[in-house]
Amino acid sequence: MKISSVDPFYFQMPDITSAADGTQDTLLVRIRTDTGYEGWGECDASPLVSLAVYCCPMSHGNIINIHTSLIGETLAEPSDVVRLSEKVLRNGLDIQQIQHAYSGAEIALWDIIGKKLNQPVYKLLAEMTDSSDTPHPKLPYASVLFGDTPEETYQISLDLQKRGYRAAKFGWGPMGKYGEENDIALVRAAREGMGPDTQIMIDAGVVWGTDYETAYKRAAAFAQFAPTWLEEPLAPDAIEAYNSLTEMNPAIPIAAGEGSNSFRMAEDVIVNGGIHYVQIDTGRIGGIMPSYQVCQLAEQHGIQYVNHTFKSHLSLAAALHVFATKPEFKLIEYPAAGSALSQQLVKEPFPVDKDGMIRVKELPGLGVDVVTEAIRQYLTPVHIQVADETVFQTAEL
Amino acid sequence: MKISSVDPFYFQMPDITSAADGTQDTLLVRIRTDTGYEGWGECDASPLVSLAVYCCPMSHGNIINIHTSLIGETLAEPSDVVRLSEKVLRNGLDIQQIQHAYSGAEIALWDIIGKKLNQPVYKLLAEMTDSSDTPHPKLPYASVLFGDTPEETYQISLDLQKRGYRAAKFGWGPMGKYGEENDIALVRAAREGMGPDTQIMIDAGVVWGTDYETAYKRAAAFAQFAPTWLEEPLAPDAIEAYNSLTEMNPAIPIAAGEGSNSFRMAEDVIVNGGIHYVQIDTGRIGGIMPSYQVCQLAEQHGIQYVNHTFKSHLSLAAALHVFATKPEFKLIEYPAAGSALSQQLVKEPFPVDKDGMIRVKELPGLGVDVVTEAIRQYLTPVHIQVADETVFQTAEL
Repeated sequence: MKISSVDPFYFQMPDITSAADGTQDTLLVRIRTDTGYEGWGECDASPLVSLAVYCCPMSHGNIINIHTSLIGETLAEPSDVVRLSEKVLRNGLDIQQIQHAYSGAEIALWDIIGKKLNQPVYKLLAEMTDSSDTPHPKLPYASVLFGDTPEETYQISLDLQKRGYRAAKFGWGPMGKYGEENDIALVRAAREGMGPDTQIMIDAGVVWGTDYETAYKRAAAFAQFAPTWLEEPLAPDAIEAYNSLTEMNPAIPIAAGEGSNSFRMAEDVIVNGGIHYVQIDTGRIGGIMPSYQVCQLAEQHGIQYVNHTFKSHLSLAAALHVFATKPEFKLIEYPAAGSALSQQLVKEPFPVDKDGMIRVKELPGLGVDVVTEAIRQYLTPVHIQVADETVFQTAEL
Repeated sequence: MKISSVDPFYFQMPDITSAADGTQDTLLVRIRTDTGYEGWGECDASPLVSLAVYCCPMSHGNIINIHTSLIGETLAEPSDVVRLSEKVLRNGLDIQQIQHAYSGAEIALWDIIGKKLNQPVYKLLAEMTDSSDTPHPKLPYASVLFGDTPEETYQISLDLQKRGYRAAKFGWGPMGKYGEENDIALVRAAREGMGPDTQIMIDAGVVWGTDYETAYKRAAAFAQFAPTWLEEPLAPDAIEAYNSLTEMNPAIPIAAGEGSNSFRMAEDVIVNGGIHYVQIDTGRIGGIMPSYQVCQLAEQHGIQYVNHTFKSHLSLAAALHVFATKPEFKLIEYPAAGSALSQQLVKEPFPVDKDGMIRVKELPGLGVDVVTEAIRQYLTPVHIQVADETVFQTAEL
């Protein structure tokens, strides 16, 4: 079968704020074949900038847009996805945004191949790499912000515990801004609310920049509350500082990697940064296959792989197929709240099962259906004209 | 003074081909202040994708466009450029294309500051870092493609020698595609045409991917012709393979780095790739300051810094200010040909002086003037509409 259409769609909530909420808008990519198959993928990236990568005029042989690279191509088996990814990345060698933009298309290609072969994507990945195809449940963790004070944080944490969460991540806000005593009080409050038999994680939101010594001290001070990890204590590009930090053997594990826009960036923070948990966003790194390769690299290095997902359950599905068959990677970032757009986007979001776990769907492709009717109200039409030519116009949804 | 306008302009030649010619189109950025100053910068990047980074609607606090970040800001001294760069990059943390797009604006900001303080940019950089402000001439090298055969390559090389070039780089084409014997014949032809008292460089155009052993063998085979470097024998992201190659002590120096879209990517290929020449494009890495920081890192590591420039002499000016004061870095990539657009863009291109050298201009700012009248015929108007709002429309040139 041939690829007959490649269409990005920009969706927005009516009011966008600068709040740390990645679900206020999104870019979905729909791919169709001449045999009637349809696949969907989601990018975690600026919708307009990524959309431009689907329609930008050619500049030379290294700046050719994604639509041109994919349209009319043969798609029959998993190896075609790998071949097409190589083509897209080669044609887009000098487009910095190429991985952010292509992620949605790559995920959609896997969705189609899975539907055609009547297999869930995780089984295709297992088959390609001669590894076990037995899926394992994951423990979802909730992501929330710290309250402005330790008291507020305690209430937030207690509420999560009452709602049945066994793991929760607390992020940014006041962390790192009012001195060590306040930082410790925040983590104590998070632990006391959730209680002793739970997992808590601390997300420092790059607050210490390149100051690995402060990050080391905080890790030592937080250890009494046994957090699962300290996330992004340093700037994403501060790999040398991460290296200095991890070489000092901090008292709790260090997590990072959500900003990995390529396999190499993830490899860099693993191999040279020495982190203990690598957090990969399938909607940024170029899709499912590069995420899977980072997962394999994590296995080789004896560190933990975990998804970064702050979009809809379409993104969650893509993220879960990547590491569903890896029993040693137990945690999953689980978007529990988010905008109406993100909530209504798929027909059946992933439920938290009675045992508190999340399971991959035993359905062809990604295993989730995009409900176009439910999100049509958020569709944001885009029209781009370059000289006298319309190079992009939102397709029929 | 305050920044009063920030305008990207897309220029295109009438016919764009997939040829390896980066001068077929370009994105210029013009910044003006409320006190009447005007600065210009050029990006080496997809014009439409980069332009979208100047106007994309906010998604959340990490996806805020460059125009929003800069407009109305105070600009008085060099430290303001550093401050504004931090702001732009922080606001665009989740926009992968941010450095490619911002490069033009950053260069324009330096142009303005230099004009305001009546200083060439290289002097401002020297002052900021307490280093020598004495400029040194650079030896320009011509960049050409290998001919399809050794005979053709010889003719190309001989022609360059006759035109007075003392250094020339030969790239891609047949290199690496027809076996060792042909590869060696190509390099021999390049050397014989230019003659013994010249410098030749070999650009393999990433042809050996991750196969560092073949790259090592070719370096050994080419050594008899004494090339200055072997450029990009491996894929840009193949840092582990670069490391394997350089650890084997290849017979000729290895060059790479033009694809560095951030300071870290350059640091990675230097520190972990072990290369001997780092090639930085000021129009991709985020502008003059990150380029200058790579230059300093190269000094610390005892390796060579050299510009990558395949645009107009506006880009060449920005590139030259970065390392004008570093006598140990002697070579400069010099765009000698290119499209009419790139040729006509600045009023007075950099001449090759009688001694065969290129010198930085002792004029305020970048020291080159953009001739808008000459390139107006290539201006490509862009109109972007998102929902009911025009988010971008090409400004008055």
